[in-house]
Amino acid sequence: MTHAHIPHTHIHRGELKYEGKAKRVYASSNPAEYIVEYKDEATAFNAQKRGEWAGKGATNNAITAHLYPKLEAAGIPTHFIEKLSDTEQRVKAVTIIPVEVIVRNVAAGSFAKKLGLEEGTALSRPVVEYCYKSDALGDPLVNTDTAIALDWATETELTRVRELALNVRDFLTPFFLERGVKLIDFKLEFGKLPDGTVILADEISPDTCRFWDAETGEKMDKDRFRRDLGGVEDAYAEMLRRVTAPVDG
Amino acid sequence: MTHAHIPHTHIHRGELKYEGKAKRVYASSNPAEYIVEYKDEATAFNAQKRGEWAGKGATNNAITAHLYPKLEAAGIPTHFIEKLSDTEQRVKAVTIIPVEVIVRNVAAGSFAKKLGLEEGTALSRPVVEYCYKSDALGDPLVNTDTAIALDWATETELTRVRELALNVRDFLTPFFLERGVKLIDFKLEFGKLPDGTVILADEISPDTCRFWDAETGEKMDKDRFRRDLGGVEDAYAEMLRRVTAPVDG
Ligand SMILES: Nc1ncnc2c1ncn2[C@@H]1O[C@H](COP(=O)(O)OP(=O)(O)OP(=O)(O)O)[C@@H](O)[C@H]1O
Ligand SMILES: Nc1ncnc2c1ncn2[C@@H]1O[C@H](COP(=O)(O)OP(=O)(O)OP(=O)(O)O)[C@@H](O)[C@H]1O
Ligand SMILES: [Mg+2]
Ligand SMILES: [Mg+2]
Repeated sequence: MTHAHIPHTHIHRGELKYEGKAKRVYASSNPAEYIVEYKDEATAFNAQKRGEWAGKGATNNAITAHLYPKLEAAGIPTHFIEKLSDTEQRVKAVTIIPVEVIVRNVAAGSFAKKLGLEEGTALSRPVVEYCYKSDALGDPLVNTDTAIALDWATETELTRVRELALNVRDFLTPFFLERGVKLIDFKLEFGKLPDGTVILADEISPDTCRFWDAETGEKMDKDRFRRDLGGVEDAYAEMLRRVTAPVDG
Repeated sequence: MTHAHIPHTHIHRGELKYEGKAKRVYASSNPAEYIVEYKDEATAFNAQKRGEWAGKGATNNAITAHLYPKLEAAGIPTHFIEKLSDTEQRVKAVTIIPVEVIVRNVAAGSFAKKLGLEEGTALSRPVVEYCYKSDALGDPLVNTDTAIALDWATETELTRVRELALNVRDFLTPFFLERGVKLIDFKLEFGKLPDGTVILADEISPDTCRFWDAETGEKMDKDRFRRDLGGVEDAYAEMLRRVTAPVDG
């Protein structure tokens, strides 16, 4: 692994491989690695609602860069290699499995609405859901049979995805609670390395999780933006502070 | 089981337990049994579209009454006891598990639409889906985690439901193909007997299946009504004829 010896300043962004709503993915000098740049843009409702604020990209980059090594240490393989700058990180290039994996501890958002449940209704056990990654189709909910029948993933891969997603939940739920935050639900993406290994990719941030203050119930995530609750920047900054601050014990 | 000795004419309908869009369920003199009456009404799109034709109830009753004993013989426990009249059958009373179980051989209907697939796209393996039975919520798609987390069914019950649903498919798919009909998809309902045994309930008819003529591809099911294709009555009558006619070979 020669890259471990290259100082950060020598890492050059290659061609833009993909520009999403929240991040840009660039090639790097190593074909097995990408450079991910976190943008300040925020979108919701499949990009119908748009905004941005200075520091959003840096905050999400910092939160993800703090969490992924902890997940690795807990036995969850991830794409994260290192933070390169305020808004950039080096990751392993993967082929993304085209399903967003949603893990729910508590009913909220579209899930609560479609089932006629009050937001905040506890679930007697975690719910793992899969949505087909397609902006054109609005990321429709599917199940594992559908993902397998349409060749998006194999049964073995999805069994592993579920196992890893629940391991992420088992790590993150107490991690956040110790920091005064209830982890309500979150979205993960997984990818495959060239040898077929399934690893956690993408990000974990207030864009991709629902965080509720454990004392006040206040929302500290993208719902502040989605629902025009105000204080969006402050909430993201506070989440970074809580994630990175040392915890008493 | 004394009921086996009571001639049909002695069976009296008790109180109306439930009136649905296509059937009425009555108590009977035996608390372990219900009498189901098939109505001539047809509805679609959660009852926004309505129609009816003479003979619809009798046709669906006859098709279900023909198929359920064959499913029993193939090892699938069902609620069906006997046909009582043109529009009535005697069934075992169950507590319905509140998920509609959809089994798909081929992409069609809402499934094809939401995934951007052409109707008729083959699935490389059967897809089993679950929708929460709630007209008020529009029967939303859920997965087994959700059904378990919200206490609609246990994991053991849903494992059995899936196994039985796939057994129904494995029986019905060649059964219909021998009769010149492709079974595209179908909806089942399961219920629990007082001892907890899971059995197949409800009906199997052109209301609850997609049937395509194996030669011409012509639709022979409720899609003729949903999509105003005409020839609805004829299609249902032809399905009854094919289901009950002896097969050569
Ligand atoms: N390690 C990785 N290798 C390759 N692609 C990755 C990796 N990690 C994340 N990605 C992909 O990079 C893109 C990140 O961009 P962003 O999060 O802005 O996308 P998005 O707007 O959410 O849209 P979508 O995820 O639907 O493409 C996503 O498509 C994500 O699947
Ligand atoms: N053996 C059974 N015991 C008890 N209930 C049954 C049995 N078989 C079917 N049912 C129930 O009887 C009703 C049949 O009526 P129908 O098919 O008209 O209902 P529907 O309009 O489809 O509405 P829904 O199924 O949403 O209640 C359904 O609620 C079904 O779940
Ligand atoms: Mg994204
Ligand atoms: Mg019904």
